[in-house]
Amino acid sequence: MYEELKKRVYEANWQLVNYGLVILTFGNVSQLDREKGVMAIKPSGVDYKQMSPEDMVVLNLDGQVVEGKLRPSSDTATHLYLYRAWPAISGIAHAHSDFATSFAQAGTEIPILGTTQSDFCPGPVPVTRQLTEEEVNSEYELNTGKVIVERFERLNPSHFPACLVNGHGPFAWGKSAEAAVDNLLHLEKIARMALMTGLINPEASTLKDYLIKKHFERKHGPTAYYGQRKEK
Amino acid sequence: MYEELKKRVYEANWQLVNYGLVILTFGNVSQLDREKGVMAIKPSGVDYKQMSPEDMVVLNLDGQVVEGKLRPSSDTATHLYLYRAWPAISGIAHAHSDFATSFAQAGTEIPILGTTQSDFCPGPVPVTRQLTEEEVNSEYELNTGKVIVERFERLNPSHFPACLVNGHGPFAWGKSAEAAVDNLLHLEKIARMALMTGLINPEASTLKDYLIKKHFERKHGPTAYYGQRKEK
Amino acid sequence: MYEELKKRVYEANWQLVNYGLVILTFGNVSQLDREKGVMAIKPSGVDYKQMSPEDMVVLNLDGQVVEGKLRPSSDTATHLYLYRAWPAISGIAHAHSDFATSFAQAGTEIPILGTTQSDFCPGPVPVTRQLTEEEVNSEYELNTGKVIVERFERLNPSHFPACLVNGHGPFAWGKSAEAAVDNLLHLEKIARMALMTGLINPEASTLKDYLIKKHFERKHGPTAYYGQRKEK
Amino acid sequence: MYEELKKRVYEANWQLVNYGLVILTFGNVSQLDREKGVMAIKPSGVDYKQMSPEDMVVLNLDGQVVEGKLRPSSDTATHLYLYRAWPAISGIAHAHSDFATSFAQAGTEIPILGTTQSDFCPGPVPVTRQLTEEEVNSEYELNTGKVIVERFERLNPSHFPACLVNGHGPFAWGKSAEAAVDNLLHLEKIARMALMTGLINPEASTLKDYLIKKHFERKHGPTAYYGQRKEK
Repeated sequence: MYEELKKRVYEANWQLVNYGLVILTFGNVSQLDREKGVMAIKPSGVDYKQMSPEDMVVLNLDGQVVEGKLRPSSDTATHLYLYRAWPAISGIAHAHSDFATSFAQAGTEIPILGTTQSDFCPGPVPVTRQLTEEEVNSEYELNTGKVIVERFERLNPSHFPACLVNGHGPFAWGKSAEAAVDNLLHLEKIARMALMTGLINPEASTLKDYLIKKHFERKHGPTAYYGQRKEK
Repeated sequence: MYEELKKRVYEANWQLVNYGLVILTFGNVSQLDREKGVMAIKPSGVDYKQMSPEDMVVLNLDGQVVEGKLRPSSDTATHLYLYRAWPAISGIAHAHSDFATSFAQAGTEIPILGTTQSDFCPGPVPVTRQLTEEEVNSEYELNTGKVIVERFERLNPSHFPACLVNGHGPFAWGKSAEAAVDNLLHLEKIARMALMTGLINPEASTLKDYLIKKHFERKHGPTAYYGQRKEK
Repeated sequence: MYEELKKRVYEANWQLVNYGLVILTFGNVSQLDREKGVMAIKPSGVDYKQMSPEDMVVLNLDGQVVEGKLRPSSDTATHLYLYRAWPAISGIAHAHSDFATSFAQAGTEIPILGTTQSDFCPGPVPVTRQLTEEEVNSEYELNTGKVIVERFERLNPSHFPACLVNGHGPFAWGKSAEAAVDNLLHLEKIARMALMTGLINPEASTLKDYLIKKHFERKHGPTAYYGQRKEK
Repeated sequence: MYEELKKRVYEANWQLVNYGLVILTFGNVSQLDREKGVMAIKPSGVDYKQMSPEDMVVLNLDGQVVEGKLRPSSDTATHLYLYRAWPAISGIAHAHSDFATSFAQAGTEIPILGTTQSDFCPGPVPVTRQLTEEEVNSEYELNTGKVIVERFERLNPSHFPACLVNGHGPFAWGKSAEAAVDNLLHLEKIARMALMTGLINPEASTLKDYLIKKHFERKHGPTAYYGQRKEK
């Protein structure tokens, strides 16, 4: 019934592998069909090579499986919480990619040191607070979604398409599964370069506000002139 | 006689190459058939490209060759000692993969800084003490096995599927040769991210005990819900 | 009309991908036909896999499109300014390659620490000053070209085939699009090794003047004996 | 006339590319046929993709071309000097591989921190002194050979199959072109791990003498038991 949605999610999950962002069975990507109110997501712990589009699990926004025989990703409740909280997003990607995860482990936001980052978001990439013992022991994955949304109290998820979960790793999002995966790749690149920049010059200054604004808006603003058409 | 066992060991050795964990003829993987009391292991110093499943060497647990014309891996005595000491494991992988080996050379355990590691083991990855001159000069490879087991006096090898041998490199294990190789890949990833995390924030705090427990148990505990079935 | 020029530019843009210097739609390469007074450049924000030679955009030196249906690279004005300023160059490549961009973000020139760099240029790789708010807010891309040329007041662009734009990334050039891309790859390598050298020995001394001269001239000087013929 | 020799040298040069040790036209590999008194080497500055076995240049030990139409590698005089000085070697490989070159640029020998290195050589990898202005300005490539041999006054080139030329990069050697390239790959790995080990633990202790001896001799000593036969 949801063949097209499952195919796109399947391909976006493979794209994570092609981009070198996951090993083994790690990582998960989902896409929401807001009209039909259903999300397709990767099954939990399944070998990519043995996975087919039919294995994608389709759930409604309350977390009930409406199609699929396998157990959905263990991070399903996090995806659903973000979709419910933020109407503007329809795709989510999660991986333990090396550099973004290292910033998450360091508990350090990614400082904005160059235009590669201001092409992505107009400021540092945020990191959540640590979850409390209570939040971990009960509804852990739901609370992971909550702590991300809490961190975005004053941030627009359409402008900042990713967040680092403290001690865990990055979640990225966008208008589709494919856009979310591309954002995760972009995030990994800015994390890698932020680490290297710090090794070259620990005193490197962050980008001037006017240059952040210029690059972000030439790509994402109302008068954007990067690309052939506007979408992210 | 042991065609199936040799084929699996052959393929697991190639997987080390595919994962980028070895160069040249380095590395070795074995699997034990506990019922038959025999282990198959890679021959010593043979070029992967010229190696066939028939070249795998089959030995009993006393180290006597029961099938195969080539000399077994020079680390054979280490593998056999671990199989004799630990009934729960049936596959072992050894490589000089860059990051895990660097921690072994540094003589430093891998601190537990994120959930990627608590998905692997519930604490730091242990490192052995250095071998003494006597242990090196007589039965070196056997003593390498002994010093690993000594380090695990208070650790469960089913929970900690790898150890760093001081000044040498990592050994990983599991229920099969394939699982051991996957664990070595997982180990390499957490070693890489621990090094990077330290570069970003030398004061990065280790993961809270309750989060270690949560992640380890959702994947490996009796009520695990990661994956489609339990195995490691 | 400009089939050959567009084909070369298309292939040079793909070479950026093959060399691992760009992800997603990042990066742009152009080539100028000085006789005809036209430049071909990559269209803005187009997926490499869906791009064909016909998609390259041809402009005259005043920036007017003379062939092509797509919007040209957002960095077009930077390319045109450099071609107008420097008669010796006919190809330009820009990417956010990891190591060169990290030096640009650090605001640090690449010190000349070895002969790999003196094979490239006879001194440190220069970095521009930061652009002012006014320069960013009005004709940003043109001003990016101007700040590069300003930095080269006392440098010969035929000897120094690259510049780091502060907080942004590298531009490289040469006698063709292909040469510019090769120079960008060479630049990335020397940036990577300069960072590593600094990690090994923060006090590493720069190369002796006589060795810089020797290596640069054996490859690029009037009595060069590197290679089968002289060209860069 | 020297078809077999040229084919082996051609393939060993390509192996440098396959191993990721060179970019563009960098690097050169040679092999000497001691019986015939001739060496085949890569031509200078030729694109690997356009190179064929016939392009290899054959010279006698005095440096006179005996077969081939192209100009030999610009480092030819270094290769010839080493072959004349050291009867035990018949293959040489040179590249500007990232990590070994970074140690050369740092002017720092590679400390022996683990058994991966004692499998290669029984001590630190040596680095030469810097060449003087006179040595650079006259017969530079010959003097590069001389400074390597000078550094080996008390070292056996059969035990230490590589040297870092200060400010330049590594040369490796062996009984054949293929063995020299394999040694260069091994060298690159130990350089990479030495750098990382230093980042993890700047106080990491060097390997105990008895462990160096054990590993070196189990692979290269008279009673070696690593591999199926002895050769390096």
